Amino acid sequence: MTPLKNDRLIRALLRQEVDHTPIWIMRQAGRYLPEYRALRQKAGTFMELVQNPTLACEVTLQPLARYDLDAAILFSDILTIPHAMGLGLEFVAGEGPIFTKPIRHEQDVQNLPIPDPSEELNYVLDAIGLIQNELKGRVPLIGFGGSPWTLACYMVEGSGSKDFSKIRAMRYARPALLEALLDKLIEATVAYLNAQIAAGVNAVMIFDTWGGILSPNDYLHFSLKPMQKIIAQLNLNQNDRRIPCTIFTKNGGQHLSAMASSGADALGIDWMTSLAEAKHKVGDKVALQGNLDPAVLYGNPGTIVQAAQEMLDVYAGAPGHVFNLGHGIYPDVDPEHVAVLVETVHSYVGTRPII
Amino acid sequence: MTPLKNDRLIRALLRQEVDHTPIWIMRQAGRYLPEYRALRQKAGTFMELVQNPTLACEVTLQPLARYDLDAAILFSDILTIPHAMGLGLEFVAGEGPIFTKPIRHEQDVQNLPIPDPSEELNYVLDAIGLIQNELKGRVPLIGFGGSPWTLACYMVEGSGSKDFSKIRAMRYARPALLEALLDKLIEATVAYLNAQIAAGVNAVMIFDTWGGILSPNDYLHFSLKPMQKIIAQLNLNQNDRRIPCTIFTKNGGQHLSAMASSGADALGIDWMTSLAEAKHKVGDKVALQGNLDPAVLYGNPGTIVQAAQEMLDVYAGAPGHVFNLGHGIYPDVDPEHVAVLVETVHSYVGTRPII
Repeated sequence: MTPLKNDRLIRALLRQEVDHTPIWIMRQAGRYLPEYRALRQKAGTFMELVQNPTLACEVTLQPLARYDLDAAILFSDILTIPHAMGLGLEFVAGEGPIFTKPIRHEQDVQNLPIPDPSEELNYVLDAIGLIQNELKGRVPLIGFGGSPWTLACYMVEGSGSKDFSKIRAMRYARPALLEALLDKLIEATVAYLNAQIAAGVNAVMIFDTWGGILSPNDYLHFSLKPMQKIIAQLNLNQNDRRIPCTIFTKNGGQHLSAMASSGADALGIDWMTSLAEAKHKVGDKVALQGNLDPAVLYGNPGTIVQAAQEMLDVYAGAPGHVFNLGHGIYPDVDPEHVAVLVETVHSYVGTRPII
Repeated sequence: MTPLKNDRLIRALLRQEVDHTPIWIMRQAGRYLPEYRALRQKAGTFMELVQNPTLACEVTLQPLARYDLDAAILFSDILTIPHAMGLGLEFVAGEGPIFTKPIRHEQDVQNLPIPDPSEELNYVLDAIGLIQNELKGRVPLIGFGGSPWTLACYMVEGSGSKDFSKIRAMRYARPALLEALLDKLIEATVAYLNAQIAAGVNAVMIFDTWGGILSPNDYLHFSLKPMQKIIAQLNLNQNDRRIPCTIFTKNGGQHLSAMASSGADALGIDWMTSLAEAKHKVGDKVALQGNLDPAVLYGNPGTIVQAAQEMLDVYAGAPGHVFNLGHGIYPDVDPEHVAVLVETVHSYVGTRPII
């Protein structure tokens, strides 16, 4: 591994001292950037872009050419695993992801293969290699996957959904079948994230977009427990360094205490949760990553600076905070506003609380 | 007013003793009932049904003919106010509500009229009169409206939305204009709910479907405060009786303490929050209404009975709980399962905690 010239992200995720709070932005490589839109137009479909390592590398690096970000995140999608399982992933403009062969019958679950990352997902591993060759240790590269519950939501519904009533019906009508599906997704995700680690990512993140639609007991059982099982099987301890693992449950603000005991090094938190309360709840167990309302970037620079500074005041330079938005950046945000945000975070001089 | 033969709902909302926990079901008059679907087919569009007092009365009473429910709720929609303001409400199959004339410019807000309930919304008041004539005090009738923030979400977006990025951009780019819109909606809602009370409803509820997408500070300012202002102006104290007021914020589980100080008599809670924790947070300030996962009704009768009993064990007969789902019943639920649920709640014999 090339040593990292900027290891603020890794240090902050591990609750170590940093000279300033690191920042990266969920979906930082994406549609709000004109250079992304230009490349996307040339590349064909979204999945063609994701599956082309050269272009995925180029897209991953685009935001780092513009901004002094403290991390790169692999340009990919959480649904690569179900796609590799044969469900036929497509992205329909304005509608989001669609599976042409969703899970409909018991045998669909039984017949699901566990993809070999070096075969069906080699385009991801190739992209990681290309990106790290370009980064040369400038900043860490974050790899990621979806939580088993979130992947199952899309696989059973066949797409995004307002109520996710198909999979929630399955949970009450066929709980054992749901568990069998989750077990397959745990196994596939462990193999996938360990392959990303072997290919050279410096940190990993598990995105649990839909854990927050579950009742509290169901969240613990069907969403958090599978993530815990994954974390326990990841090769996070590499010789002399730790690959920090972050888990992010959208609408998971009521579960932070349980999440802090999952084995994750850090929790991503959405903007609907108070960072100060979250810090109080998790204590010194984990770092926190977040959580500016992405809509703040629609405001003028003065509004952005003020909102970012108020958020930075919560940690005030104490270890354990990675600045981020509370969710992915919106496609219609002015790229200049992102520059204001990054500059605000990097120039912040906080005073630590005395007590 | 005809005296109520069954006043369990009112007593429970006011935290008074009841012989058993009352139950009603959000969207109990709706698509899961074959008799509703039959009438809906005859009636034309959804809005034609809502605006026809005779049919709205018939639909309101349908679930009470099937089940021993402890309340009726007016068959209507939260978007009647924006419709009366001239935004042109339509329901598109599979897409939900659409406004043909959404808020797009500053003058759209300035020009918004405050509807006179006895004019533009008289169909609602007429329906209330017809329903109470039929009910003859059998159970209370609940009237309702939407929260100003939630109405504003639909009015600015023009429909439902994944991210509500238009109104969230407005919040940061034009906060004063958003406040002006909310002020108009407060005034209109006060007039509307007071007209419903004058027409004879026994309880009122404010549905805040989208308050949960806001950051904690923004929730307090843009969603809860407008609801507080409404509650303070409602004629809830009628000679010798109280019209209980319930507020329900979907994904509001992190705000229950603040909501309990809003002036509301009760809080509706969604299924993503633990009823036991919610009870602990609100103490004896308010009653709680909820919060079974609506997906439980996809399970078999044994699953339904067990889940309902576990929920009833939280209050175990102590005052202050109204049984309900944590959100509206799903259209594809078996109506027989609702019968199982109602029977389970009514036959529950709880033991109060000794301490």
